[in-house]
Amino acid sequence: MTQAKSFAPTERTTPTRSRERASYDEATVHAILDEGYVCHLGFVRDGAPVVLPTLYGRVGDRLYLHGSTGSRPLRMAGGTAETDPGLAVCVTVTHVDGLVLAKSAFHHSINYRSVVVHGIAHQVIDEDEKTAALDALVEHVVPGRTADSRPANAKELAATAVIRLDLREVSAKIRTGGPNEEPEDLALPYWTGVLPVSPVYGAPIPADDLAPGTPEPAYLSAR
Amino acid sequence: MTQAKSFAPTERTTPTRSRERASYDEATVHAILDEGYVCHLGFVRDGAPVVLPTLYGRVGDRLYLHGSTGSRPLRMAGGTAETDPGLAVCVTVTHVDGLVLAKSAFHHSINYRSVVVHGIAHQVIDEDEKTAALDALVEHVVPGRTADSRPANAKELAATAVIRLDLREVSAKIRTGGPNEEPEDLALPYWTGVLPVSPVYGAPIPADDLAPGTPEPAYLSAR
Repeated sequence: MTQAKSFAPTERTTPTRSRERASYDEATVHAILDEGYVCHLGFVRDGAPVVLPTLYGRVGDRLYLHGSTGSRPLRMAGGTAETDPGLAVCVTVTHVDGLVLAKSAFHHSINYRSVVVHGIAHQVIDEDEKTAALDALVEHVVPGRTADSRPANAKELAATAVIRLDLREVSAKIRTGGPNEEPEDLALPYWTGVLPVSPVYGAPIPADDLAPGTPEPAYLSAR
Repeated sequence: MTQAKSFAPTERTTPTRSRERASYDEATVHAILDEGYVCHLGFVRDGAPVVLPTLYGRVGDRLYLHGSTGSRPLRMAGGTAETDPGLAVCVTVTHVDGLVLAKSAFHHSINYRSVVVHGIAHQVIDEDEKTAALDALVEHVVPGRTADSRPANAKELAATAVIRLDLREVSAKIRTGGPNEEPEDLALPYWTGVLPVSPVYGAPIPADDLAPGTPEPAYLSAR
């Protein structure tokens, strides 16, 4: 029998409330991360928090985050030496799955799946690792696209900074199902239940400068 | 002629790159905030950043964020005195509008609208303000629902903590349109353009304990 792999909970990955929603299962965490491509990257600057939406990709037990070499968190993640102290970050990925409507305003909620990663981010120096990270980023956004676009050249690679964050101190949090109710509320006349929500992709819009007749790739129609 | 209101840029609301995407226009900021209901709340704990998905609502030039009285950021936002120092936070709201596919991997991007708010959050003490804030939260999630559910009672109000953040140091960032290309890439055969994406609401799922025949409210079908 295969043992399911789990992340070890730490004090800061143990929620103070709704603990039954927490999960440390690696497969659960990976599935939530792999479904998305925009994370919210938190770091501290001059003692104050900063949260920026950022593209990411996962390769094994590492997250790669995208930026330009001029962007603040990337510069703060240090120089190019592996011995640099790096940047303390928190990376959060959230998928909203439904709006939960209860009899009482108090019990209204959201069905969601989120992953929170704490750790120290480092700049990626190695060119092969950087190329693999950028491929993973593009594949997260549009699976199949890496093989169907021009790879980055040396100048573009140099202009792109990538930071790496090991998946070590990680937790998922998941809410599913219908509303919780106070027993005495059940007779109230209000409709209750869940309104499902998910990201839906529309018809691809060709670029103005796309040559007429260029076929639409199959991996787009599949989304 | 009415003067459009704008937020004054500060050093930390001035992006280091893609400055042409930044906006400080109040109506633009409000529209982005009002379209969402889940923000990413960043704060600093023991010197390290924490980013948590959190429900929010806007009332005028204030954001209200939801939590339980036991949750960490709420406890850190201080006691019930208006003179408490509060909690330094960064609140970020992001809507993804499209995946931007360019000839080169490097120029792949995302169309998005985001708002970043920096400031000091305070616990809401006043009961009327708290009630109004919770109404705004519910209305953000499901417009029309406040009038069609049981209002919070005193016990529920006491169990709910709400933090308030004034909209003062605020910026929006918006990317729209098709891919940027290197001129020499235009002859490459790859399909380019935008794959639009938006949250789509499905058919409401009634709760297991909902009385048969309870009509589905019109404000749900409208989403």
